[in-house]
Amino acid sequence: MHVLFVYAHPEPKSFTHALLERACKVLDQEDVSFEVTDLYAQNFNPVAGRHDFTSVAQPDYFHYQTEQLHAAQHGTFAPDIVAEQEKVRKADAMVFIFPLWGGGFPAILKGWFDRVLAYGFSYVDGARFERGLFKGRAAMACIPTGGTIERFSPGSTYGSIEQVLWPFTHCKLGYLGLDVAAPYIAYAAPRVGDEGRTQQLADWETYFGDFIRDRLANHPALPPLAPPDTLTSWNSKT
Amino acid sequence: MHVLFVYAHPEPKSFTHALLERACKVLDQEDVSFEVTDLYAQNFNPVAGRHDFTSVAQPDYFHYQTEQLHAAQHGTFAPDIVAEQEKVRKADAMVFIFPLWGGGFPAILKGWFDRVLAYGFSYVDGARFERGLFKGRAAMACIPTGGTIERFSPGSTYGSIEQVLWPFTHCKLGYLGLDVAAPYIAYAAPRVGDEGRTQQLADWETYFGDFIRDRLANHPALPPLAPPDTLTSWNSKT
Repeated sequence: MHVLFVYAHPEPKSFTHALLERACKVLDQEDVSFEVTDLYAQNFNPVAGRHDFTSVAQPDYFHYQTEQLHAAQHGTFAPDIVAEQEKVRKADAMVFIFPLWGGGFPAILKGWFDRVLAYGFSYVDGARFERGLFKGRAAMACIPTGGTIERFSPGSTYGSIEQVLWPFTHCKLGYLGLDVAAPYIAYAAPRVGDEGRTQQLADWETYFGDFIRDRLANHPALPPLAPPDTLTSWNSKT
Repeated sequence: MHVLFVYAHPEPKSFTHALLERACKVLDQEDVSFEVTDLYAQNFNPVAGRHDFTSVAQPDYFHYQTEQLHAAQHGTFAPDIVAEQEKVRKADAMVFIFPLWGGGFPAILKGWFDRVLAYGFSYVDGARFERGLFKGRAAMACIPTGGTIERFSPGSTYGSIEQVLWPFTHCKLGYLGLDVAAPYIAYAAPRVGDEGRTQQLADWETYFGDFIRDRLANHPALPPLAPPDTLTSWNSKT
């Protein structure tokens, strides 16, 4: 079993980083291998564009998915995308650790989804949700929020946390065929004091440990996701 | 009355751009002034970081909202953010035109929200939703999707479009106190053919025209939003 963390926070001394460190500790204890994508440390560029590709399918009109499919078929994604896709391919579980900003991802993480989980690589026509290419793999999120749990309750200020995260958990993770575990939310992390955050770290350690031990016990490790050219050949036959 | 378009698409010949052009035509006909933020054309950087500020509140620990508030109080946002905030301040209505990518914004647009609509500028403690600083101003989105209207129906593949857009329309636009108009969705734009897209442009023109004429008739134009330092002085007294 192999885990990929995708982590987005600009401050290495942040509580969000402490959540990442705690999860890494759990994996060390369980002897599970992992990699970390640290988007800020990598200076990841989240803007989709022609720089995503070393090839050009349509020189006169830039249609993103057309270029993504072409790159998947010809092995012509830019090096920064290839490096991330290689990490994704090996992962039995992906764990996303980021603060909720304005009800969603920091832009740097949204761009990782846009650019890395490309058409032709992570999904193709006819292979979505229950037929998604990531079937048998898992995803989980660990998210500190500014708002309290009351504000993320059904019918409350922001709507339920499930409602706020729906485009991410369902339209993106579920879409790929991933088993989407319930996220761990560190509610109101900036407001709960050092003792509160210490407790949140302990709760997250327990929660994540249970998740990992369940995956180890009940879900076989998988071979790497098929490389893009295989996927798109398969796709072209359907 | 003054309108700000915030537009995010990498291809100037795209259908999404045609939607922007059509809306500009409507405003010309109604003699309403407007500006366009063209994020790709401006090469907008969506990544939040220390480069957002010409000041430093906490040198040893980067907490984004703390730096945003400090910059609002001292007039020390970076020039690219100031330029956008000046456009936002003048707008009686903001219109967001972008394709739905993976259930959400293109990252370049998410970053505009993260960086431009900063704490201390667009919201402060105690001034959210019905007490939001943008009260009396309006927002609308115009969004082409890949998926059909059936897939965005309640209980269907992606969930209802309202459900998918909730973090944007409620947690972000509603949060600021904006009157959030129902979005115009150009469903399955890549799949409906030239004739279908011609019809969508006509439908959008009608829809947007009705929105603008209603705003002109029923909502007085407002003075520019108070500059950041005023807001945060106000905030510090509450």
